[in-house]
Amino acid sequence: MKTVSENRCFGGVQGVYSHASSSCACEMTFGLYLPPAAQFGRVPVLWYLSGLTCTHENAMTKAGAQAIAAQCGMAVCFPDTSPRGKSVADDDSYDLGQGAGFYVDAAQDPWAPHFKMWSYVGDELPALLVDAFPIEPDQQAITGHSMGGHGALTLAMRRPEQFASVSAFAPIANPTASDWGRKQFTAYLGADESDWEGHDATLLMRDKGFDGAMLIDQGAEDQFYELLRPASLSEAMAARKQDGTFRINKGYDHSYFFVSTFMEDHVGFHAEALGL
Amino acid sequence: MKTVSENRCFGGVQGVYSHASSSCACEMTFGLYLPPAAQFGRVPVLWYLSGLTCTHENAMTKAGAQAIAAQCGMAVCFPDTSPRGKSVADDDSYDLGQGAGFYVDAAQDPWAPHFKMWSYVGDELPALLVDAFPIEPDQQAITGHSMGGHGALTLAMRRPEQFASVSAFAPIANPTASDWGRKQFTAYLGADESDWEGHDATLLMRDKGFDGAMLIDQGAEDQFYELLRPASLSEAMAARKQDGTFRINKGYDHSYFFVSTFMEDHVGFHAEALGL
Repeated sequence: MKTVSENRCFGGVQGVYSHASSSCACEMTFGLYLPPAAQFGRVPVLWYLSGLTCTHENAMTKAGAQAIAAQCGMAVCFPDTSPRGKSVADDDSYDLGQGAGFYVDAAQDPWAPHFKMWSYVGDELPALLVDAFPIEPDQQAITGHSMGGHGALTLAMRRPEQFASVSAFAPIANPTASDWGRKQFTAYLGADESDWEGHDATLLMRDKGFDGAMLIDQGAEDQFYELLRPASLSEAMAARKQDGTFRINKGYDHSYFFVSTFMEDHVGFHAEALGL
Repeated sequence: MKTVSENRCFGGVQGVYSHASSSCACEMTFGLYLPPAAQFGRVPVLWYLSGLTCTHENAMTKAGAQAIAAQCGMAVCFPDTSPRGKSVADDDSYDLGQGAGFYVDAAQDPWAPHFKMWSYVGDELPALLVDAFPIEPDQQAITGHSMGGHGALTLAMRRPEQFASVSAFAPIANPTASDWGRKQFTAYLGADESDWEGHDATLLMRDKGFDGAMLIDQGAEDQFYELLRPASLSEAMAARKQDGTFRINKGYDHSYFFVSTFMEDHVGFHAEALGL
């Protein structure tokens, strides 16, 4: 693993690291914020999964998570959103290929050799973090924005033993019924829609829900409201009596100005769930 | 004036606007955060002047000022760092020309026709803001980072009637004795060093100081420590018995991770000076 950069931030360290990923078969880069408390022992980690077109860097510089993470004594990890590189397949559109991994393990060519973001974020990177940094393996929480909210919700519902809590900012909530989902699942997973079901937060909510509290924030003026399909997830949460909060925020759009506004609430929510 | 974008942020609005500047004789872009309190009447404004290579956007997305500005009921204005455009003179180096206005009114060619950032930030933009937004003209404070810290300190010390308080993050503190200053002052102001004196925070501190409190934060691991010359300003503040705080912060560098860490302290400092 290589250290790309380390900057002091709110008494802790905002690092950027790269490593040869076995899941994605390419070099991958991630950001990791370690709070001041990490100097004295292992700390819990909050995973922040980013949205379409983002790298590890966007949320790390714009979401404002470090201030509250420092106070709570929680690490925050910012993975990239896809494999990268000249030898990695790509597409001209912004919502497929590099920058658009959708947190699935691709089974179709040309994506299958590298696009294994489900395994990368769910297995490989957690193991690497616990090995290389003072991260407590049994105290993980997960959140994300847009495509990353989709990733956070689907990972948490299918791996409740791994994640103590889950939240999302304007998640792609029902991708099997959206142009943000059907196109990508067809490309990555194939045309058999039964293979898509484990990657749709609304379907997973109907099927199993999450054993713990869940926090969803959605901007009412989100320019992608129709693509995100928040009503499907909200309905499914209420139908299941899922413990949690689904909040519609008047005036807010899809940008990091929205994410940063509610970041303190989300980090605080996870800190409470983790007993901090 | 044109609205480039407006995003809801911490209950207020983060806007970006452009206008034909009479001082700079070109189109100029700035960011303005209006807190929730601006819905009900005029609010004070904190000017945030950015550093070399920055536009209006860097601090607006990375410095994390909006959260605390919203709480304090204070607007924050993020001007650009120079005139811009194809018809505006430029230089291949990062520290001269576009992105490097140094907050002076250039008197030398080829810079004189457009590089009037002293007048732009000090006169034109405040008047525009008061005219177009609910900004209280008699409640202005100023801060900045690096080259912008230099701008903030020099504007405040020479215009104490305009700015109730001043602070700076890692300011270029003594440019007449630094390669970050001598090169640019020669180009913009000419070879007569007596014309530079009104644009050097250390010399102004020795000459007049500031009638009010002053807050300076400097990272101990700043990669530009020698160019910034913090010791000159610190010595001058102590020699004058300037009311204020000069803080050296162990481990911090020159990045926005440093700025964002101390932003809450600075906004709070200005809020107190403004009686909020």
